[in-house]
Amino acid sequence: MIGRFISLEGGEGAGKSTQAAALAAALEARGLPVLVTREPGGSEGAEAIRQLLMQGDVARWSAHAEALLFAAARADHVEKRIRPAIAAGTWVICDRYLDSTRAYQGAQGIDDAAILALHGFGSKGLLPDRTFFLALPRAAGQQRTRARDGAANDRFEARDAPFHDAVAAGFEAIATNEPDRVRRIDAARSAPEVTQAMLDGLADLLP
Amino acid sequence: MIGRFISLEGGEGAGKSTQAAALAAALEARGLPVLVTREPGGSEGAEAIRQLLMQGDVARWSAHAEALLFAAARADHVEKRIRPAIAAGTWVICDRYLDSTRAYQGAQGIDDAAILALHGFGSKGLLPDRTFFLALPRAAGQQRTRARDGAANDRFEARDAPFHDAVAAGFEAIATNEPDRVRRIDAARSAPEVTQAMLDGLADLLP
Repeated sequence: MIGRFISLEGGEGAGKSTQAAALAAALEARGLPVLVTREPGGSEGAEAIRQLLMQGDVARWSAHAEALLFAAARADHVEKRIRPAIAAGTWVICDRYLDSTRAYQGAQGIDDAAILALHGFGSKGLLPDRTFFLALPRAAGQQRTRARDGAANDRFEARDAPFHDAVAAGFEAIATNEPDRVRRIDAARSAPEVTQAMLDGLADLLP
Repeated sequence: MIGRFISLEGGEGAGKSTQAAALAAALEARGLPVLVTREPGGSEGAEAIRQLLMQGDVARWSAHAEALLFAAARADHVEKRIRPAIAAGTWVICDRYLDSTRAYQGAQGIDDAAILALHGFGSKGLLPDRTFFLALPRAAGQQRTRARDGAANDRFEARDAPFHDAVAAGFEAIATNEPDRVRRIDAARSAPEVTQAMLDGLADLLP
């Protein structure tokens, strides 16, 4: 049996890591082998690149250098963990993946086609079987993030409101343009409702 | 006055760093402002990426991830140091640049056009005004490297002889195909002779 590849996307505070764990539990309860991972990071090399990406001030990396670093980290993660797991029959749940790069680097003016070209080069264009975009109004997401972390605690959270609005618009555009792969989920609902919506969105993939 | 951008290329032990310093001294003696830098590295961010590239075993990074990391490091170096220096009228001498990526990643099967595309994305395709390929038979280069460092001391020196032969062939092909920019220099001669050959090769650029 071949595994499946699921990514969770959305802005800060949308509940991605909580939902990744909840979805993993639900799939494991059905007897499926599950690997939960995250980006940037997820493999030894990619976690080292993650440190470079998250630390320092907002201006540390140009948008182009940042896009290349994300592509390098993803190439390592895909080759070392995601592809082997799928090949072994595991369901891989990834907290952020390519669409985050498209939304965040796109909000800094990087062309979507260029990001997809880097992804084609680094990771042979591997796309998830299904992506859930956890959509939450910015204010609600910030409230959750602040309650969890206190002040902004990395180079991405530290950006201003128009930036985060552009990121959200990027996710919305991807969901609109790629409806077969990407399902938009209202993440303002309770956690169990969001998990159930994801399970409903996997009905055609579940054995 | 606008500055100029010169890169020194070649295999391990070809004398690039020695010659970069000697060329800088010769240009400074003519009253020119000079910046000597190197890749991978040369800026704060790029030096951090350099650590990732040089450490670990040969298999730490796939050839594709490696090419993306080099492109990210170069993008940072070009934006933060090389372009500002050239704009300020400085002559920039860089110990390794794009052609090293083409030769080393090319020797691992990465398509030259793909490497040039990454360079176009990350660094807007910035090419040196002149590149000197310091050509030295592999055995002579290894002898110099071993005398300097003892055993192989990074992920690139640790590769086998066929790899280093493929790298040398890559440099030769670039020099043959881009004769206006790239000048091949016989690096088996004495250090002062090599320096003089580079100065001769800059005659059309020197004020």
